[in-house]
Amino acid sequence: MNPPRVTVISTGSELTAGRSQDTNSSWIANELFGLGYSTEKFLVLPDDPKLIREELKNLASGASKENPVLLVMTGGLGPTEDDYTLEVVCELTSSQPVLNDKAHDRLQALYRLRGKGFQEALTTALRQVSIPSNSTVLNNSVGIAPGFWSELQPGAYLACMPGVPSEMVVMFKEELIPLVQKQFQSEELYSDFLFIWGMSESLFQQEFIIDIDALKDGKAVWGVAAKKGFIRVTYQSPDKSLVQELIQKTKEKYRGLCTGDLFEEFPKLLSERKLTLGTIESCTGGLAAKILTDRAGSSEYFLGSVVSYSNLIKENLVGVKKETLEAHGAVSEETAIEMADNGARLLGTDLTISITGIAGPGGGTPTKKVGTVFIGTHIKGEPTEVKELFLPFKRELFREVVAATSLYLMYNRLRKLV
Amino acid sequence: MNPPRVTVISTGSELTAGRSQDTNSSWIANELFGLGYSTEKFLVLPDDPKLIREELKNLASGASKENPVLLVMTGGLGPTEDDYTLEVVCELTSSQPVLNDKAHDRLQALYRLRGKGFQEALTTALRQVSIPSNSTVLNNSVGIAPGFWSELQPGAYLACMPGVPSEMVVMFKEELIPLVQKQFQSEELYSDFLFIWGMSESLFQQEFIIDIDALKDGKAVWGVAAKKGFIRVTYQSPDKSLVQELIQKTKEKYRGLCTGDLFEEFPKLLSERKLTLGTIESCTGGLAAKILTDRAGSSEYFLGSVVSYSNLIKENLVGVKKETLEAHGAVSEETAIEMADNGARLLGTDLTISITGIAGPGGGTPTKKVGTVFIGTHIKGEPTEVKELFLPFKRELFREVVAATSLYLMYNRLRKLV
Repeated sequence: MNPPRVTVISTGSELTAGRSQDTNSSWIANELFGLGYSTEKFLVLPDDPKLIREELKNLASGASKENPVLLVMTGGLGPTEDDYTLEVVCELTSSQPVLNDKAHDRLQALYRLRGKGFQEALTTALRQVSIPSNSTVLNNSVGIAPGFWSELQPGAYLACMPGVPSEMVVMFKEELIPLVQKQFQSEELYSDFLFIWGMSESLFQQEFIIDIDALKDGKAVWGVAAKKGFIRVTYQSPDKSLVQELIQKTKEKYRGLCTGDLFEEFPKLLSERKLTLGTIESCTGGLAAKILTDRAGSSEYFLGSVVSYSNLIKENLVGVKKETLEAHGAVSEETAIEMADNGARLLGTDLTISITGIAGPGGGTPTKKVGTVFIGTHIKGEPTEVKELFLPFKRELFREVVAATSLYLMYNRLRKLV
Repeated sequence: MNPPRVTVISTGSELTAGRSQDTNSSWIANELFGLGYSTEKFLVLPDDPKLIREELKNLASGASKENPVLLVMTGGLGPTEDDYTLEVVCELTSSQPVLNDKAHDRLQALYRLRGKGFQEALTTALRQVSIPSNSTVLNNSVGIAPGFWSELQPGAYLACMPGVPSEMVVMFKEELIPLVQKQFQSEELYSDFLFIWGMSESLFQQEFIIDIDALKDGKAVWGVAAKKGFIRVTYQSPDKSLVQELIQKTKEKYRGLCTGDLFEEFPKLLSERKLTLGTIESCTGGLAAKILTDRAGSSEYFLGSVVSYSNLIKENLVGVKKETLEAHGAVSEETAIEMADNGARLLGTDLTISITGIAGPGGGTPTKKVGTVFIGTHIKGEPTEVKELFLPFKRELFREVVAATSLYLMYNRLRKLV
């Protein structure tokens, strides 16, 4: 069996009218890439059942068991009149909409929670908890509408998921990946991954991948996904020891830059060691704290933050000396040190991250360009360390990279100490 | 002649691998929409000449003078080996690449400016200043590579533009629009939108849309997109006064729940009135501050935040009374008031938002369920107001909705006062 030809489809008239930006497709393609599937194209369609039907038919038409097609579609599963996915797929697969019990129960529970009678909005709401009779459900653990997995014709598989990114992401990971892997892999594959911080995909490929024989021979496959501040490298092979060897080789080359899933590992280490953490942030504006509290249960180790966006707050609340700000500027090693040291006292934390930089597009100077950032890490009983980085990205990406990197820097210091 | 069936195409393997986000398509569709052309679909393709040729052929195949097709494509016009647009279009239109004099001169001037000999990179560089012999040039006044306008077959028009957004945007406005308008007569469409806070798509449709005759008649069209904490409602019609009437009717029904784009309007109001803003956050963990600082230039009005995630920080740093925390709990109206009042003093802000709630999944009690949140708004010289909300969403969505809603609540109070 050949690997599937993959098309990622987003539906929504707000997308084709340019009122909303489709971010699902590139997220999905990136994840699929990490799993070893390349996407041939994206298609964005309005909420027009005729067009959607026509395109799905076309895309499925060339498929066979030997040359399968995988269509991953988002959107059109909601309760409103312009949600057509269920209807179109029922038509294409000659099936009927059937209520999905689990989703129906969730919907009913939600109405109860909101103190509304379930009968009130029943008719329109029920639309979104049905799936085609001959499809497999993709449960929605975040929202209401379930997704589904249908075979349009032999070898042509269609996954339909909600357009709401937060619902889609969880459904993709929890429900769809296992189905995709079951469908398109004849032999059992073993895979493992690691993060490499501050690394680019192309450099990694040039420096490392091209010299690895096992990857040239096709004994193992690799995938790399660019994330914010790091790349996620995956190796996959039927041979478990080969995957482990590749992971080992990567670690030998990149050493301290490698971590597992930092957003799992770091909290785990903090909990185990009963350490508390806080941040003093300037240019990231609370983003590092936000990321640290994304996780349920983070109150176990995360105490709090001060976002000292203005210099007045750096001075008056955080206690950075006026002379320091005047002599070195708010974006300096000296300020980062005082932010971390004073922050530790202010918050009463064992570990304190400080961040001060220039997110841009304004605020740069000839000596301190937009993209300059100082990240301080204070660990109780140790001298504060500051790392200066130059990350010439657009404002949004810059802030995401800086926040994630600050967690990496703290984690990397900590794991050497404990 | 019928209006053209429009497809917007982006090429680039970095797009289909999910490494880059295609923002050109939605920008183009939005502009076309404003000019009265609706886009039927977006297509994103890798740098694969065979695929690009195949798709262009397919898209052109149904066209005739009576039923024209407009294809607007970006990307693939650069000097590197994976830029195939010129080659593919030459093949499809049986033409040859010819140097475009104006672009050639610009390229030569650029080399001079950079102090490089023009011969150095000549061969690869020249690739990007050629266009197909039987096409019309679209001049590039920002970068090097010109675009072009070709007729693939009678009634099938293809515009090729660079993928670099800054170059594409200017070329689209200055060069492409006149050609498109000359080729297709369009009726000008007028559109406007508003946000409705705390509203769902389906409820809005049931409560409002189904009773509006103009929308049933098709004299105007509407669209609604569910966002975090609000819906975005758009109306469109050739009749400007009808759109205005619909916006007015919506405002009459939903009154204070309606805003324009809050993320534009609120900062604008703060700047105009020279007011400063800060947040004291618990369950949102810095997300409200993060959203407020997403915007470049936010330091003009945003001073800073305290994320008092633990009760210790609520008490010791923010100064919430121990008795308050003990008697009413951290998630209470009383705590929200002290957070806002003390926060205003601590941060020295004119406007102070406080947020305390239970994001879950843990931490709920029979009397205070997961999803409960108190949002305080302190405006200098006014008594602090607290709004209790119950938002039974998953952690991530809960935090996004709470943070956005806190900005709405502050904005809505403020606009009534000033």
